[in-house]
Amino acid sequence: MIRPFSPLDFLARSARVYPDRLAQVDGAHRVTYAEFNHRVHRLAAALRARGVQPGDRVAVLAPNSAMALEPHYAVPLAGAVLVMLNTRLAAAELVWILNHCGAKVLLADPQLAPLLEPVRAEMPAIEHFVTDYEALLAEGTAPFTDAPPFDENGMLAINYTSGTTGFPKGVVFTHRGAWTNAIGEALEHGLTAESVYLWTLPLFHCNGWCFSWAVTAMGGTHILMRQPDPARAVELIQAEGVTHLCGAPVVVAGLAQYCLQRGIHFDRPLKLVTAGAPPAPAVIRDAEQIGFDIAHVYGLTETYGPHTICAWRSEWNSGDAADRARRRARQGVPYIIAGTDLRVVDEQMTDVPADSETMGEIIMRGNNVMEGYYNNPEATATAFRGGWFHSGDLAVMHPDGYIEIRDRGKDIVISGGENISSIEVEKVLYDHPAVLEAAIVAAPDEKWGEVPLAFVLLKDGCSATAAELIEFCRSRLSHFKCPKVIEFGPLPKTGTGKIRKNELRDRVWGGRAKRVN
Amino acid sequence: MIRPFSPLDFLARSARVYPDRLAQVDGAHRVTYAEFNHRVHRLAAALRARGVQPGDRVAVLAPNSAMALEPHYAVPLAGAVLVMLNTRLAAAELVWILNHCGAKVLLADPQLAPLLEPVRAEMPAIEHFVTDYEALLAEGTAPFTDAPPFDENGMLAINYTSGTTGFPKGVVFTHRGAWTNAIGEALEHGLTAESVYLWTLPLFHCNGWCFSWAVTAMGGTHILMRQPDPARAVELIQAEGVTHLCGAPVVVAGLAQYCLQRGIHFDRPLKLVTAGAPPAPAVIRDAEQIGFDIAHVYGLTETYGPHTICAWRSEWNSGDAADRARRRARQGVPYIIAGTDLRVVDEQMTDVPADSETMGEIIMRGNNVMEGYYNNPEATATAFRGGWFHSGDLAVMHPDGYIEIRDRGKDIVISGGENISSIEVEKVLYDHPAVLEAAIVAAPDEKWGEVPLAFVLLKDGCSATAAELIEFCRSRLSHFKCPKVIEFGPLPKTGTGKIRKNELRDRVWGGRAKRVN
Repeated sequence: MIRPFSPLDFLARSARVYPDRLAQVDGAHRVTYAEFNHRVHRLAAALRARGVQPGDRVAVLAPNSAMALEPHYAVPLAGAVLVMLNTRLAAAELVWILNHCGAKVLLADPQLAPLLEPVRAEMPAIEHFVTDYEALLAEGTAPFTDAPPFDENGMLAINYTSGTTGFPKGVVFTHRGAWTNAIGEALEHGLTAESVYLWTLPLFHCNGWCFSWAVTAMGGTHILMRQPDPARAVELIQAEGVTHLCGAPVVVAGLAQYCLQRGIHFDRPLKLVTAGAPPAPAVIRDAEQIGFDIAHVYGLTETYGPHTICAWRSEWNSGDAADRARRRARQGVPYIIAGTDLRVVDEQMTDVPADSETMGEIIMRGNNVMEGYYNNPEATATAFRGGWFHSGDLAVMHPDGYIEIRDRGKDIVISGGENISSIEVEKVLYDHPAVLEAAIVAAPDEKWGEVPLAFVLLKDGCSATAAELIEFCRSRLSHFKCPKVIEFGPLPKTGTGKIRKNELRDRVWGGRAKRVN
Repeated sequence: MIRPFSPLDFLARSARVYPDRLAQVDGAHRVTYAEFNHRVHRLAAALRARGVQPGDRVAVLAPNSAMALEPHYAVPLAGAVLVMLNTRLAAAELVWILNHCGAKVLLADPQLAPLLEPVRAEMPAIEHFVTDYEALLAEGTAPFTDAPPFDENGMLAINYTSGTTGFPKGVVFTHRGAWTNAIGEALEHGLTAESVYLWTLPLFHCNGWCFSWAVTAMGGTHILMRQPDPARAVELIQAEGVTHLCGAPVVVAGLAQYCLQRGIHFDRPLKLVTAGAPPAPAVIRDAEQIGFDIAHVYGLTETYGPHTICAWRSEWNSGDAADRARRRARQGVPYIIAGTDLRVVDEQMTDVPADSETMGEIIMRGNNVMEGYYNNPEATATAFRGGWFHSGDLAVMHPDGYIEIRDRGKDIVISGGENISSIEVEKVLYDHPAVLEAAIVAAPDEKWGEVPLAFVLLKDGCSATAAELIEFCRSRLSHFKCPKVIEFGPLPKTGTGKIRKNELRDRVWGGRAKRVN
């Protein structure tokens, strides 16, 4: 018999099965599943009392904390739609998003609220600007008995993409999609009732890749961490018995460096799920060395976070570390819950040959692919042309059916008519022992049109000259792929730890016209 | 975006991700996922070539073998509906079922086919009676490119309940329901790509509790075993590195006895999922002693097999063996995929108090609850009165939200107006060191209406008198609950290893009118 799929069931069940089990740790705030559920019901009731009706949007601007986690349940329980805001955005960007989604309520962490207070008049739809979260909870009573019926295909959340160009787009998540991808995370990464999950990944990023719901589904424990900081992460991993965490490769690299420099090794099983950019083999090697069991996944906000996993084959264990890291760096195959709807295609939407060489665009379908962009039918139609979601990511298909990303469409360097994968060159740079972070962008060139230019941050206490690094690349790559210029210094990053290549490109191209993809 | 959920995706994905991995072992027949998929496509093509159209029923009468497993994919791939037949049924029962579902094709194992050949004329709908399975496969070519589109809520399979009284009822499974319950099995029991599953449970029983699909979803290995036999099971567990198996308590008890008598202990993790009747604490203790990690689940054909699990709480580990076994014997809480839609209610469908004492009927809803009975609207309406599926099982609700079955409605003994749980008395008998199997049924009594009567099979080499066993019960139970008579000897069982209490009742009551529940 058909019952609507929803992540709301996850909390209701865990509160029933594991009422006394630790559900959340947020500093001194340690709550059981019974208390978690109770707080969620109070918040739902308080929102309803403030006038929130089914379908209304409720936005949250908060670091990883109870205030970021609990609305994942309370807002949909009240029938409303959750909009998690990226805490690294500028005030003008937040105003644009809040007006676009028409949020009626904004919950803002007291430390972040001052950013928006001066511009509050620019957001006339917001009726309630709440900074005292506990006081709001105190307005509601549990249980909240007025939860409206819902359609599994109804809106649960809107997640705005960081949008390197143009206006942000609001990715619509449904109850069914979120349920499915959360179950997918639990299955792929072996979450159980004994799992302890460390929130290194922001909860505002695709609802924490749906781990916001997956950890709760299993009755595991959420360990919230307000700032991604290696020292604090290591402390929590050891003190709370963390079993799982997620992060972009720069987060992984930072954590690995921190541990390697201090001789820290994790002996208990510790799974690290990484995505957001292809991790360089060197980063994978380092992370494995300190005891992380790495799972490499790939997806976009439009796919509820991860959609593919580099599913490990036991026969690969016999390879050496470099070979294993090379395998691990591939984006892989669809999640079990995503079936087989993943292709790499040319511009006519014909599959490219599975020859590890021909690049094409990754397209996908599935219950964990968004419904569309909120109030943006043109962008939705473009993204779904031909009935498949177009990722904008360029990949090759290996003969064994695993995909490997060569580049974002806009990140590729086209030099003398040849495509140069920025990722391929970055991987070589990461192999150099002195390199902590590296980014390749296209630079204008009279003769070749574009040439690769490298931005590099060296590890603490290490040194390397531009000439040394260029020679290192030339010993490993075709010469036309090697950077001619290297600029040293910190790299700009997004709130989720991705390197902002668009900002680097702006630096390089200045006022000059860039190629439009 | 909505894509229909179906277990068909599981094989397609595993064939792509793990083409070289061992998928099935059936004696000398050892096939990889690529071959498994290839054979399934050939079978689908062969069925289509024989005239099977979408919606047609294809029945299978086979022991656990490739011939039982592969149609789980090939039949729905061709758009048809799978009807797995219980191999222990008499010819007349099979004829009734085949005519009721109107199967167009019957695939019959050569050893079982002779049962039906004499009555073939009684089944006019059957156009193809196939006993040479490999020859049928050879008629088809892969890939089968004519798979019809399907509705996730469309019929995938019909499973006839063994029906202790009246005619069998055909439980309708949908693609969505089977997908959901298979994912549920994988999640609850930690199936992975490294799992090796031993088929001690018949594939005809609720499609093997959906493990037919769950093991494939993860890319694990199916080890097929034609007859449940402890010696062969132990051999396969050791030779193939089995990680998971399922079975009714009598199967578990038989396996445990076999191992205990021979000093066999399994050192590698080995999960044993048991259901079908509440396992006696003594059986659980024995099984744990030889190294099985027991998961106790509960469900019915109408719930795609398991619907609840005795989810283990780590705080219970501190109890002694008897206490742990008592906890483990409870049916527990809904599967994660089943949410919270499980209740114990009185005749007015009001929840009974969670006091561990008040008995009520277990009712449930969920995506893993059947759509209804095939061509039987009256039985469907009765089963779903009030919008919930009525299990017919009587349970109590414990204060912690776990259910524990006290009896099947028809198995309860009503003596002097008091309800006696046959299970409660059986548990005590199983605690006696000489008892291998025990069953309590109601016997007619002039004074009390009914009194409990015990059927007991002793362990090999053990002895106990009726007086001893009755005294053993009286030292542990209220006297009115204790059997007054004990009959010794083998107990009749169903094809799935359940004790046939209806047959025992017939023996006791002879021609006398029995209570009708």
